[in-house]
Amino acid sequence: MIYTLISPLDMHLHLRDEAMLKVVAPLSAHSFSGAIVMPNVVPPITTIEAVIAYKERIVHAIGNNVFEPLMTLFFRDDYSREFLEKAALHVKALKLYPSGITTNSEAGVASMDIEVLRPVLEAMSDLGLILCVHGETNGFVMDREKEFGSIYESLASAFPKLKIVMEHITTKESVALLDTYENLYATITLHHLLITLDDVAGGMLQPHLFCKPIAKRYEDRDALLHVSLKAHPKVMFGSDSAPHPIHKKECCGCAAGVFTAPLALQALTELFEKHNKLANLQAFVSDNAQRIYGYKPLYKEVKLIKAPFCVPSSYDNVIPMFASQTLAWSIEHVL
Amino acid sequence: MIYTLISPLDMHLHLRDEAMLKVVAPLSAHSFSGAIVMPNVVPPITTIEAVIAYKERIVHAIGNNVFEPLMTLFFRDDYSREFLEKAALHVKALKLYPSGITTNSEAGVASMDIEVLRPVLEAMSDLGLILCVHGETNGFVMDREKEFGSIYESLASAFPKLKIVMEHITTKESVALLDTYENLYATITLHHLLITLDDVAGGMLQPHLFCKPIAKRYEDRDALLHVSLKAHPKVMFGSDSAPHPIHKKECCGCAAGVFTAPLALQALTELFEKHNKLANLQAFVSDNAQRIYGYKPLYKEVKLIKAPFCVPSSYDNVIPMFASQTLAWSIEHVL
Repeated sequence: MIYTLISPLDMHLHLRDEAMLKVVAPLSAHSFSGAIVMPNVVPPITTIEAVIAYKERIVHAIGNNVFEPLMTLFFRDDYSREFLEKAALHVKALKLYPSGITTNSEAGVASMDIEVLRPVLEAMSDLGLILCVHGETNGFVMDREKEFGSIYESLASAFPKLKIVMEHITTKESVALLDTYENLYATITLHHLLITLDDVAGGMLQPHLFCKPIAKRYEDRDALLHVSLKAHPKVMFGSDSAPHPIHKKECCGCAAGVFTAPLALQALTELFEKHNKLANLQAFVSDNAQRIYGYKPLYKEVKLIKAPFCVPSSYDNVIPMFASQTLAWSIEHVL
Repeated sequence: MIYTLISPLDMHLHLRDEAMLKVVAPLSAHSFSGAIVMPNVVPPITTIEAVIAYKERIVHAIGNNVFEPLMTLFFRDDYSREFLEKAALHVKALKLYPSGITTNSEAGVASMDIEVLRPVLEAMSDLGLILCVHGETNGFVMDREKEFGSIYESLASAFPKLKIVMEHITTKESVALLDTYENLYATITLHHLLITLDDVAGGMLQPHLFCKPIAKRYEDRDALLHVSLKAHPKVMFGSDSAPHPIHKKECCGCAAGVFTAPLALQALTELFEKHNKLANLQAFVSDNAQRIYGYKPLYKEVKLIKAPFCVPSSYDNVIPMFASQTLAWSIEHVL
């Protein structure tokens, strides 16, 4: 059994930098035609020079793969309109982090006050730049995304022409917002389609399934599955694949992030086939994103075959999801 | 500043066996006058011979400390009344685990059906044996204890003369049950008075704070604090101190359990003093337990002094709570 995806896109990807970039960039570049690359490296990407230089390092790291890194800027509320006009030539989106909410987000915005954000968001809206948001408050870990819902509503109402992507949504409340505000979109990860908090902390503690936002309840996962499997026109696949070296996952105090890039398409194919929704996968992993971002990707055919794929125990020093487990689908070849 | 506790008791303690027993037993025996010792070793303690032999190993391990291990049997629904009559000479309580719910609980009861449990529970009730319960269902990790509430209610109603201890409670719903059923009691751990899920998984993942039941919400912790600080007559301190060697806490898949025995009294003194409730600590860590269990402990004075206690980074290969941190109170000496 064979299934071919055309130009799959990962609309939320962490490639990090330096040695880690060299390990993970070729893995994404093998499977995907392009990816929205998150700007929360150290230091965060806040200048056009940094965007260009980071893109060059990525292009160098991917080798001969057909793959376009779609660059983003780390959102700051003091960018000028002039700066954003120039930046729009180099980036598709700005990523907004509330300060300190996840890995390397310390430089994020201190306040989500609409009036503080207005100048930058109005300029972005005029320029067609997309706003990607890590939507969590600093509240109780299971409530953070739900509490952020009212901020999404304020942003969507205040800037009706701005496309706002609720990144890596994990709750049924976020799913419901998709049908309430025309300009709210979402990315959904592989792991949030598969796991709940039970998988992270219900049996043994599983550091390699620990991520932000944390996996929630069964009814939340079911809501995510529902819109993904039907390829709801406002949802896009975004892996949030986030490599951490093993010592940062297993020492006292484990970093958040699940590494899925090299197995995401295989696992998604297995999941969609299981639910008899394989016909919708192309839209979930590419077509919806093309339409939402107004982006025409590089042409790439990824041919998947229903043959066992034994996920490696590690990629260099990074442990992937499904390490040493077998998935039902493999990538046969890429054209 | 000095504060003296008389015969402090730990009403829920894991001492394990063999090498680990030798590491941890002297630490509890130094601080406490006695402890209810949990029977979920491998294999579980299900015979009188095993109770006697385990007690001998414990007594051997504690050295010259004044300390009485109060033994328990691993609950099985097929114990005969004759067996329980003999067992009552050697144990204070039986510990009931739903099968598979926590470390070494695979041999627990498969069904919580009252009629299945009736013969053993009626015999225990007649014999004055106490029923200690790990009260969790196999539901979603944050709901397991709350879901078990109706089982506590059924047990308490069906066996009104049986003293039932809800072990290591973590929710406001369990606290509420204390005032609803005369024969329901509870142990409360140190760590559940201090942490919430935010401490386990809200920032970096903290394997050394991972325990079962998992730490819950702020309102749950506040409810536990409320009844502990006032030394509600139906609550007792039970550390649930559970040592795991470091490789079982930090490898892929971390075991559940927080090791607090050697610092529990110091940390409790700090907590109760902070809330101006030091006058109630004696009842929380000893007097309530004596009355509930009808037990007169060995006499022991534990003199605490307000002087910094730097918690060791490890005890042998076990990482304690507050590793390498400083508590405000130390144990000055023990008589």
